Amino acid sequence: MATATWTRRHVLSLADFTPAEYDTVLQTAASCQEVLSRRTKKVPALQGLVIANLFFEPSTRTRSSFELAAKRLSADTLNFAAATSSLTKGETILDTAKTYLAMGSDMMVIRHREAGVPQAVAEEMDRLGVRVGVLNAGDGQHEHPSQALLDLFTLTSLLDPEYPRLKLLADKKIAIVGDILHSRVARSNIWSLTASGAEVHLAGPPTLLPKWFGEWGVGSGEWGVGNGEENGEIGGWEDGFSQSKIQSPKSKIQNRKLFVHWEIEPALKEADFVMTLRLQKERMTAHLLPSLREYHQRYGITRDRLKLCQPGVKVLHPGPVNRGVEISSDLMDDSDFSLISQQVTSGVAVRMALLFLMGSGKPV
Amino acid sequence: MATATWTRRHVLSLADFTPAEYDTVLQTAASCQEVLSRRTKKVPALQGLVIANLFFEPSTRTRSSFELAAKRLSADTLNFAAATSSLTKGETILDTAKTYLAMGSDMMVIRHREAGVPQAVAEEMDRLGVRVGVLNAGDGQHEHPSQALLDLFTLTSLLDPEYPRLKLLADKKIAIVGDILHSRVARSNIWSLTASGAEVHLAGPPTLLPKWFGEWGVGSGEWGVGNGEENGEIGGWEDGFSQSKIQSPKSKIQNRKLFVHWEIEPALKEADFVMTLRLQKERMTAHLLPSLREYHQRYGITRDRLKLCQPGVKVLHPGPVNRGVEISSDLMDDSDFSLISQQVTSGVAVRMALLFLMGSGKPV
Amino acid sequence: MATATWTRRHVLSLADFTPAEYDTVLQTAASCQEVLSRRTKKVPALQGLVIANLFFEPSTRTRSSFELAAKRLSADTLNFAAATSSLTKGETILDTAKTYLAMGSDMMVIRHREAGVPQAVAEEMDRLGVRVGVLNAGDGQHEHPSQALLDLFTLTSLLDPEYPRLKLLADKKIAIVGDILHSRVARSNIWSLTASGAEVHLAGPPTLLPKWFGEWGVGSGEWGVGNGEENGEIGGWEDGFSQSKIQSPKSKIQNRKLFVHWEIEPALKEADFVMTLRLQKERMTAHLLPSLREYHQRYGITRDRLKLCQPGVKVLHPGPVNRGVEISSDLMDDSDFSLISQQVTSGVAVRMALLFLMGSGKPV
Repeated sequence: MATATWTRRHVLSLADFTPAEYDTVLQTAASCQEVLSRRTKKVPALQGLVIANLFFEPSTRTRSSFELAAKRLSADTLNFAAATSSLTKGETILDTAKTYLAMGSDMMVIRHREAGVPQAVAEEMDRLGVRVGVLNAGDGQHEHPSQALLDLFTLTSLLDPEYPRLKLLADKKIAIVGDILHSRVARSNIWSLTASGAEVHLAGPPTLLPKWFGEWGVGSGEWGVGNGEENGEIGGWEDGFSQSKIQSPKSKIQNRKLFVHWEIEPALKEADFVMTLRLQKERMTAHLLPSLREYHQRYGITRDRLKLCQPGVKVLHPGPVNRGVEISSDLMDDSDFSLISQQVTSGVAVRMALLFLMGSGKPV
Repeated sequence: MATATWTRRHVLSLADFTPAEYDTVLQTAASCQEVLSRRTKKVPALQGLVIANLFFEPSTRTRSSFELAAKRLSADTLNFAAATSSLTKGETILDTAKTYLAMGSDMMVIRHREAGVPQAVAEEMDRLGVRVGVLNAGDGQHEHPSQALLDLFTLTSLLDPEYPRLKLLADKKIAIVGDILHSRVARSNIWSLTASGAEVHLAGPPTLLPKWFGEWGVGSGEWGVGNGEENGEIGGWEDGFSQSKIQSPKSKIQNRKLFVHWEIEPALKEADFVMTLRLQKERMTAHLLPSLREYHQRYGITRDRLKLCQPGVKVLHPGPVNRGVEISSDLMDDSDFSLISQQVTSGVAVRMALLFLMGSGKPV
Repeated sequence: MATATWTRRHVLSLADFTPAEYDTVLQTAASCQEVLSRRTKKVPALQGLVIANLFFEPSTRTRSSFELAAKRLSADTLNFAAATSSLTKGETILDTAKTYLAMGSDMMVIRHREAGVPQAVAEEMDRLGVRVGVLNAGDGQHEHPSQALLDLFTLTSLLDPEYPRLKLLADKKIAIVGDILHSRVARSNIWSLTASGAEVHLAGPPTLLPKWFGEWGVGSGEWGVGNGEENGEIGGWEDGFSQSKIQSPKSKIQNRKLFVHWEIEPALKEADFVMTLRLQKERMTAHLLPSLREYHQRYGITRDRLKLCQPGVKVLHPGPVNRGVEISSDLMDDSDFSLISQQVTSGVAVRMALLFLMGSGKPV
């Protein structure tokens, strides 16, 4: 597997990923995918290393994916479950991380409901001078880089299974539909997809769109699209970042092809790929949405709506799906359209690739 | 280990198990038992395969048994725990199963409080054309085949440790005592034990006996026993099956030696083996039982009652036991009578055998 | 690794540990520590053995430490989690232990909120004639031997990394500060530290000190120190032992250098090491403490207070720490003073050593 170009210790955000890094992940994931097609789906690459899965926010699905990736690299895993943890005993998150460091963890996979927690742990590890990599498995409304990378791998390996690479998406149009505002998946995907040169079109109810487009240039040049009203809402991307030291990505997003719409139709029009986002039902109790039914009527992905897209359009969803809300139930199960299963499979390969790349830098 | 005769992909119910299949399981389990007597209790048989334990209904004991069986075959396991799962997020059970499929699971062990869930998952796997075996680890009040097979292995390997086989029970009398109505353990055991040619006598309070005996011929031929009143209660075995597509086993149970009693004495009389069932305390809040004390007085297994049985009678219980309810506490600990520990040990061997048989059909 | 002198099957209490046993553990832990410094931190010592972690009282941190120790010896582990267990179904603890025995466990690591549970399980295993070792991972307010042994290893390997041994502490003064009364960590440490010949000084609020000093000779000979008032409070060490058959350790503690103080200053004066204990916040609702703030003012470890100690004094804490209560936050993070990270690291090495020593007596 290709590791020559990899120098990154932590994977916290895709904001500063380079094209070479994307391609290294994609090509390493392709090698991992090949391992997974064997009967004995295991390599000794990380034997004897310990990976701590610190899931302060519970997630069976993502944890299973990381755990399987670790096992297939022959690493040992330690699982921290928030529910039975000493967090209830008043220990800080950094103390927990340092405890797992002292036990001998070589890498940490961290999920937390607050943005910035994985970054804070990574900074602490660096400050302590230890060579422990931290992988952000989802932090608040900030980022979920491994999800965006598995989406990228799903798309690019569909276009070229032998040689998936960023530039395969350069001329594609990709729609991201739903609750952009609260979605760490969307934020990470915006970085990776726009980095490829693709046109990325966001669509969702105004209450569920971030307000930073105006600030950063929405309404002029490539940013402004749809009706003028969209630019009326101005605010800050930093909504979810209050507790972190994450830099504003404003300067980096400029010069990329990112568009925003209040209606779904302009986003879908001639799109090559449609990414739907999970709708948290809590959004309704917060009065950001009238009803699931109305949401589906206006923003749900259906066979009819897909006729606006390119022939051969494919639909993605990070799961778990609310059937009949983000996407109609029959469409979800139609393998002519849905890439949802491939995304899950890609997840194991991409997480193997990330752990392998991070772990191969450890001293022998 | 003998796999020549094994062609079954899923183990969902014992209703259609053939004598040859029972014997293959018993003989494979005997080989596994031998592995377990070594210091290094491990074989590389399923190395690199992934077994997903999907326990929608929590069970430390059964999950541990399956997990250990998998480890001793060198398989990797993924544990799904309902409590922290995305089920609370609105995902369907089939979606969860498909997610674990997409991650690369080769087999699934499924427990659910609704009858028919493992069957539904197995049908979906077949429909998708994937060679993934599903093992029913207990579904509602339907079946618990691995429990009945471990009971069968416990009994037959007691009679011939070298060569346990179904026909060893042909002339035995076996009593099953307790809450037959709600017991998936009883249902599976009825299939296996009557298949051996043994006489199977069910005994329990009328409120806890299934009502299908009448419908299916109780009161005539071999079905009718005890006092006539027993045949007054008529109903359906399908009580627990409402959500499944499981076929009525009516035709299959005929011509087998199955008897039903409201009193315990005729069931125990000259019995070679007595199986007691766990009493769920919820039954009392549902007014199906007066009190635990009265239950014990009428249906509890005690030294006195065992005098009705054959000398050398042995007692089984699937565990966990309510001491002093289903069985008197001192009897449970008396290794002259109790096979409870052997059942647990057999559990690991039989589950190893099942996973081995199901897994050895996977493409190499 | 040195196992010649090891004949102990269970590790339940340090009350009867011999100096040779302490030294065997320390030297074996030093070998394990060396294994942990390699890239592949794994040895096949216990391959094929099964270690059951029966944590009736939840503890992510201690369970992770034991689990990692087991994995690094290549043992398989079974984790029992109280929350989802059949304990809620009425099974006794001994029944649970016997179930895990019957599944094939070779060793059991047991934590329970009641004192004496691991002892009771060990007695049952012996009664059954099985060679299964039981390790007490914390029982009520009784003992936590692996914690005291990791503290001992932390201290002695600081003094001589190559050859840690009990007698290195012979002339040291060690203060143990805090809630001695409720602390199983303190109780185990009292045994090991006084066995080394060190002077051990206990300090804490009178409400949080055990009352057995008077009974057993406090106020005379080496026991009496500080002001006379301390001896006014008389009671029994056995507070936490009511449900166990643990023998009174009274006779064994005599002739050791143990002192007790109501004020922190005499304990700290010229101390070489200071052990702080975790303060359970429940103590306040029980009116044993006025407030965390007042506790910190009177008994918290701060830079100022450490000036009373020997230069080069080191501070220990079993974790998790309530920052700013038992110890000031900045001191905890100052590696010139704090041994907290080393304790966690020692924990894995010492637990490996204990499991190795207990497991190497198993028949091959």
